[in-house]
Amino acid sequence: MGQNLALNIAEKGFPISVYNRSSSKVDETVERAKIEGDLPVRGFHDPNDFVLSIQKPRAIIILVKAGAPVDQTIETLSKFLEPGDCIIDGGNEWYENTERRALAVKEKGLLYMGMGVSGGEEGARHGPSLMPGGTPEAYEYIKDIVVKVAAQVNDGPCVTYIGEGGAGNFVKMVHNGIEYGDMQLISEAYDVLHNIGHLSNEELAATFTEWNKGELESFLIEITSHIFQVKDDKGDGELVDKILDKTGMKGTGKWTVQQAAELSVAAPTIASSLDSRFLSGLKEEREAAAEVFKKAGLGDLLTTKQVDKEQLINDVRKALYASKICSYAQGMNIIRTKSIEKGWNLNLGEISRIWKGGCIIRAVFLDRIKSAYDRNPKLASLLIDPEFAQEMVERQDSWRRVVSLAIGAGISTPGMSSSLAYFDSYRRSRLPANLLQAQRDYFGAHTYERTDMPGSFHTEWSKFSKLK
Amino acid sequence: MGQNLALNIAEKGFPISVYNRSSSKVDETVERAKIEGDLPVRGFHDPNDFVLSIQKPRAIIILVKAGAPVDQTIETLSKFLEPGDCIIDGGNEWYENTERRALAVKEKGLLYMGMGVSGGEEGARHGPSLMPGGTPEAYEYIKDIVVKVAAQVNDGPCVTYIGEGGAGNFVKMVHNGIEYGDMQLISEAYDVLHNIGHLSNEELAATFTEWNKGELESFLIEITSHIFQVKDDKGDGELVDKILDKTGMKGTGKWTVQQAAELSVAAPTIASSLDSRFLSGLKEEREAAAEVFKKAGLGDLLTTKQVDKEQLINDVRKALYASKICSYAQGMNIIRTKSIEKGWNLNLGEISRIWKGGCIIRAVFLDRIKSAYDRNPKLASLLIDPEFAQEMVERQDSWRRVVSLAIGAGISTPGMSSSLAYFDSYRRSRLPANLLQAQRDYFGAHTYERTDMPGSFHTEWSKFSKLK
Repeated sequence: MGQNLALNIAEKGFPISVYNRSSSKVDETVERAKIEGDLPVRGFHDPNDFVLSIQKPRAIIILVKAGAPVDQTIETLSKFLEPGDCIIDGGNEWYENTERRALAVKEKGLLYMGMGVSGGEEGARHGPSLMPGGTPEAYEYIKDIVVKVAAQVNDGPCVTYIGEGGAGNFVKMVHNGIEYGDMQLISEAYDVLHNIGHLSNEELAATFTEWNKGELESFLIEITSHIFQVKDDKGDGELVDKILDKTGMKGTGKWTVQQAAELSVAAPTIASSLDSRFLSGLKEEREAAAEVFKKAGLGDLLTTKQVDKEQLINDVRKALYASKICSYAQGMNIIRTKSIEKGWNLNLGEISRIWKGGCIIRAVFLDRIKSAYDRNPKLASLLIDPEFAQEMVERQDSWRRVVSLAIGAGISTPGMSSSLAYFDSYRRSRLPANLLQAQRDYFGAHTYERTDMPGSFHTEWSKFSKLK
Repeated sequence: MGQNLALNIAEKGFPISVYNRSSSKVDETVERAKIEGDLPVRGFHDPNDFVLSIQKPRAIIILVKAGAPVDQTIETLSKFLEPGDCIIDGGNEWYENTERRALAVKEKGLLYMGMGVSGGEEGARHGPSLMPGGTPEAYEYIKDIVVKVAAQVNDGPCVTYIGEGGAGNFVKMVHNGIEYGDMQLISEAYDVLHNIGHLSNEELAATFTEWNKGELESFLIEITSHIFQVKDDKGDGELVDKILDKTGMKGTGKWTVQQAAELSVAAPTIASSLDSRFLSGLKEEREAAAEVFKKAGLGDLLTTKQVDKEQLINDVRKALYASKICSYAQGMNIIRTKSIEKGWNLNLGEISRIWKGGCIIRAVFLDRIKSAYDRNPKLASLLIDPEFAQEMVERQDSWRRVVSLAIGAGISTPGMSSSLAYFDSYRRSRLPANLLQAQRDYFGAHTYERTDMPGSFHTEWSKFSKLK
């Protein structure tokens, strides 16, 4: 990642110094710089030489594993840095760590930023989405560079100054949570099409290729259409069928779910995608469970009626799109709520815009989200933006059909079904929480409010019940 | 709570000293002690006098709000305590706070426990479920008392030494998370019966009364049957219909969800109950959303076919029971995983047993859970205990019908549907996570495993796709 970003920066005409604890990595970068067009990259094997080679005030981007390695790198560098220099952490760091480090290096007169970088190796090399946060002065150090290095879309580069403190890391964290949601929803669409619609990999490839021309157009839909076409180089058929159904993960999805709970924001689509990764990881347990249930008379899949393939494909596309809106609504609300808590004053329209290119969740759809926030920067939820609301209403029949069909077939669609439950909870003026609040008042004297008069009330419920 | 617990202790024949910063509360307790049978309660207005009145080594139970008030109380008391004395926090405290405090007071030679207390005011007075954790020596100080004070069930008092450190608080936290799940599932059952089955409050009361005679027999089902019978003292009809559908909460449900994520344990039923509380709280937003969607052509409820009431009631009962098994499986797995992480060596069968009486989630069903863990203390999940597995298979048709019916009616059943998705994910030997892992390898070179050979693999996906 660091190597690719350095080459990208150099390619845009900014001479760059690179350093790594491992000399071979430095040499490799310099070698690649030569091959890829004689790019202005200078390699250093010593951190002091490295720092001295940079023009003051210095801006140094570090790309190491989040956590302790970042602290170690800061310690190494700060021995040689001078007041006014700036350190920029480009890793997936927990935002509070960034805020702690910013305070610590401030004592030495250093500036500090946490900058989310999305787009994988490819993005880093040819144009990532960048989410820099920290003191505004520090952003001025890198602004000219990052606007050229970032992916370019119709309305500008995919970078903007996000906000103070750890805002850049926080926004990147939620970006990753949304990415979890997108990937889960696509997997569920695949599951339904494959196991209910009996689509072949060829048909799946064609379907996703087709979907990528419409409302779902996005990087993840595109690569999914490629994946179904890749032949197994070690056997027959397509590689996707041979891949173990066990998913890895890093920390950002988990943090997103924990932060949502912390902020009292419901984020069931993102949470269900995290849970699905946890459950996928229990491969051996699942196999044992499948055996237990088979013995009890329940097979992996239940038999269902023959379905119309075309209708199913259309329904699944609509269910995927509607669920995706819910997922983004949740992610944006996590950001909005945190922004209020921290006083970050984040611009949700701008954040949507810089996700339009470079990053893993890049999609045409993000332009629509940007427009929704441009229309109303204080929008309580994407769901009630008039355009999105209309789209959801148009798709809800398909959505309900797909989830019901999956339930009947014994296929779990945790992302789609939790999105639908979220939608149906959010759009209902009356929920059954009146009963729940009555229970709380019954056993814990927690009191309740009434629909028809102001005030807080408590009832001695057991005294008034006839059957007690 | 503290007052009721003190009276309970005194009633069991243990003379007790009580102290509170507010003198009136002390006097009130002493007054109640006289009225309720001349119980041996002595009140103190001064903390020093209070401490001196207790026989050494002292055991002092504090019941104040979790967080800073606990620290303040410890500070006040420890001025007068002597080495060997023990402080027991009976609040809903975050387990790490208990571990921090145990270490801090250890320097003064004091012992410390965190003891979960469940059962509300009523339970505290007449027999709660108690979950004491900390050093085993400290438990000896209170053992004779708590076994008499706790609720008594067929196989003993609802108290057991839970484990070291903050284990008592942790188990109580998960108890509360499970309580959230139970309450949410009951609310959903009510929602479906009320809005799809059109059951009157009288019919609902009769239904829950009937349910309380079978597999669902529990405190929460019982109080629900009472709630539907309580008339509104300020107007016509039943009070439950006038209660605002806005639910409050404290911290334990949130912590349970955050810990589940931290431990990589899927807990969607508990998480959905937390999310539902969050969404219920957005009453004004929901009303506004309902308006937006009404304009877009979607009313609060969708029209559905007439249903057979008896069949619906039966189906909902089975859906509720099956979902409840999922919820408890999640909660027990959070405890099991934490126990391994912390080396607490928790006994899940014993924990189930002490929840059989006294606490909010008390239920006949817990005896079955205890038996499952007695059969196999290392059970990976309650779902695959042969008895529970059989029960779920017998109920799954009803469960699928209820969730599908709710989806068709536009009623959200986040708890039941996420439980079903959890069930269908856990019991499937093959999930669509193969696609997700292919995506991760495509854009991030995260590698994948194969189903047919050992090893870790990486593919340059884009190079092999035909359409790229």
